[in-house]
Amino acid sequence: MRYELYYWPSIQGRGEFVRLALEEAGADYVDVARAGEAEDGTEAMMRLLDGKTVERPPFAPPFLKAGRLLIGQTANILLFLGERHGLAPAGEGGRLWAHQLQLTTADFLQEVHDTHHPIASGLYYEDQRKEARRRAADFLAERAPKFLGYFEEVLRHNPAGDKHLVGARLSYPDLSLFQMVAGLRYAFPRAMARLERRIPRVVALHDRVAARPRIAAYLASERRIPFNEEGIFRHYPELDAAP
Amino acid sequence: MRYELYYWPSIQGRGEFVRLALEEAGADYVDVARAGEAEDGTEAMMRLLDGKTVERPPFAPPFLKAGRLLIGQTANILLFLGERHGLAPAGEGGRLWAHQLQLTTADFLQEVHDTHHPIASGLYYEDQRKEARRRAADFLAERAPKFLGYFEEVLRHNPAGDKHLVGARLSYPDLSLFQMVAGLRYAFPRAMARLERRIPRVVALHDRVAARPRIAAYLASERRIPFNEEGIFRHYPELDAAP
Repeated sequence: MRYELYYWPSIQGRGEFVRLALEEAGADYVDVARAGEAEDGTEAMMRLLDGKTVERPPFAPPFLKAGRLLIGQTANILLFLGERHGLAPAGEGGRLWAHQLQLTTADFLQEVHDTHHPIASGLYYEDQRKEARRRAADFLAERAPKFLGYFEEVLRHNPAGDKHLVGARLSYPDLSLFQMVAGLRYAFPRAMARLERRIPRVVALHDRVAARPRIAAYLASERRIPFNEEGIFRHYPELDAAP
Repeated sequence: MRYELYYWPSIQGRGEFVRLALEEAGADYVDVARAGEAEDGTEAMMRLLDGKTVERPPFAPPFLKAGRLLIGQTANILLFLGERHGLAPAGEGGRLWAHQLQLTTADFLQEVHDTHHPIASGLYYEDQRKEARRRAADFLAERAPKFLGYFEEVLRHNPAGDKHLVGARLSYPDLSLFQMVAGLRYAFPRAMARLERRIPRVVALHDRVAARPRIAAYLASERRIPFNEEGIFRHYPELDAAP
């Protein structure tokens, strides 16, 4: 069975967390809105978002078609893929712990988004730049250190070793933490250079994930969309202030 | 086995979504920070948040102790309770769909929170009042109608009938949608009076949940903390503008 991933064709965004899991799993998938004519793909995506014709419409992309299943919400898709492809522990405790870490990553990601869109996601950045400066300053001084420090502690206290967030094997939250570090480096290079000194285990995890053969091949391919200022991780130098 | 729920003792907040599920399930639980001396309970909660001594520390409350399991993230706790107490379908498709709806509710709730804290959760409302006005206006004009309209469509197109979000039985996302309506009515009575005209099925679901014997008994009890201006749903009249 070939998975169909539906997400915006020009950004990494939330879809990237799903792409990384599909790539690491070596899964057969098509990135629908990027395949063939981009407009057709995006139209197909919009049709599946239509609550009037779809029995279980997603609220927003990304979503994944897996046979008869249509699965929305990034963390929910990863819950599904984790179970199917061995990217999460099989036991109840480990499965819930992996999902808990993923949901914490989702909260972290939302706060990254809000650094450039603190007032309204429907408005341009330029229309909320002043508020963005205030929010980004708080994010870099308080929130990013808190989230990154949390993951550092989780790695440090993992009884199976500090190479993975959950147990002794790679799981989908590891892939997502890699993406958070990569994105934060792009968006806030100055702040991250400072922050990274206090999270050596998180940085090492990022590097190990990047070096995994399937991930490395993906990152070097055309399938990896470059970071840009339409996505969630945006580089606006005026927001990358010294705390 | 008695569950231990850990959450702030003076607000409904995110913990309320867990309380509603525990109450509907008729589960044996103790709301630790509210039991006995409040200070001791809150201290016990803070100890479990300490990443230096706890193997799988939650990032933030609420979290649930269930025997040896310590489970954090509201939606993750509900995933667990839903499976244990028949508050979600047993099959994979229904289970994922219920969780997807819960995660969409979590996104909705975060946007409610940000109406009064658009800049920093660590600052007082009074220090971000101007930005809150802008964000709340957008929330009431764009986001709340979009989320509520989405749930209305989900109910309308549920092939098992419009009484529940998932299939023909109550599931945890129904309880959470009840709480969203109750909270929005408290926070934005003027805006909700208008918005509710377009979401009759959502309103009817709210009323049916409120009338369920265990939920009705809970809502009438001292265990239901009143809404207040420390929680997520806050009534600041200046934010309840006409769209």
